[in-house]
Amino acid sequence: MYEPDPNTDLEEISETDCLDLLERHQIGRIALVVDGQPLIFPVNYGISHRIITFRTAHGTKLSSAPGSNVAFEIDDYEPSAGVGWSVLVQGVGVDSTTALDDVSWMARGASPHPLAPGVRIHRLAIRPTQITGRRFRVSG
Amino acid sequence: MYEPDPNTDLEEISETDCLDLLERHQIGRIALVVDGQPLIFPVNYGISHRIITFRTAHGTKLSSAPGSNVAFEIDDYEPSAGVGWSVLVQGVGVDSTTALDDVSWMARGASPHPLAPGVRIHRLAIRPTQITGRRFRVSG
Repeated sequence: MYEPDPNTDLEEISETDCLDLLERHQIGRIALVVDGQPLIFPVNYGISHRIITFRTAHGTKLSSAPGSNVAFEIDDYEPSAGVGWSVLVQGVGVDSTTALDDVSWMARGASPHPLAPGVRIHRLAIRPTQITGRRFRVSG
Repeated sequence: MYEPDPNTDLEEISETDCLDLLERHQIGRIALVVDGQPLIFPVNYGISHRIITFRTAHGTKLSSAPGSNVAFEIDDYEPSAGVGWSVLVQGVGVDSTTALDDVSWMARGASPHPLAPGVRIHRLAIRPTQITGRRFRVSG
């Protein structure tokens, strides 16, 4: 479903390189849909065997993500180098707090450390269906 | 629909301060839903009179956002200060390229300059229904 803009010379990032970028970063954003309205939340995540995972408390993410389609994204832009990139993970949310499925085992192998204060005893994971990325260079 | 986590001491950011943060930044992310799958794209945006706007070419954003619920988010985390924040705009996408409605007029008053190369002759805008934000301080 991801279509690069046909009028640009954006460079696709391979899935291997996307995973490498995901390994080297800690803060991303999850998008989920609540009553037809997409929402975006920043999260401090970990990754283990292609499974994105993060801790959360009771709330919108925990009540809406499990079993539903979600998106996860990281990006960066370095003005000095003139290079920007983004990685997009499409997938399905999984409540991996105590579940015994493969995704949940993988998720519990990663160790996200939330930056925000508060008790976050639940763990959400994303079972990926598609991992894509793109990089662009600003000329001039 | 936005619910702060009940177990944290996150501080809500007023809409006025959210708008101030939106004015002072240039890169955010839009989430939209395509065939039930949320997607997130980074965009270089502008804002005018509460209307978020950005340029785009033909593609997923232009074909999916107009008339649909979308989310727009900016965030930042400063490790040295131990402070993070995020602003979330919920709203409806509008193709403001040539439309004569109020939102489109406002949108054409802002001047986003895309960082990515390519021809982006279309202009999308977001008519906001809710603008919320939160800030947290990491102790220690």
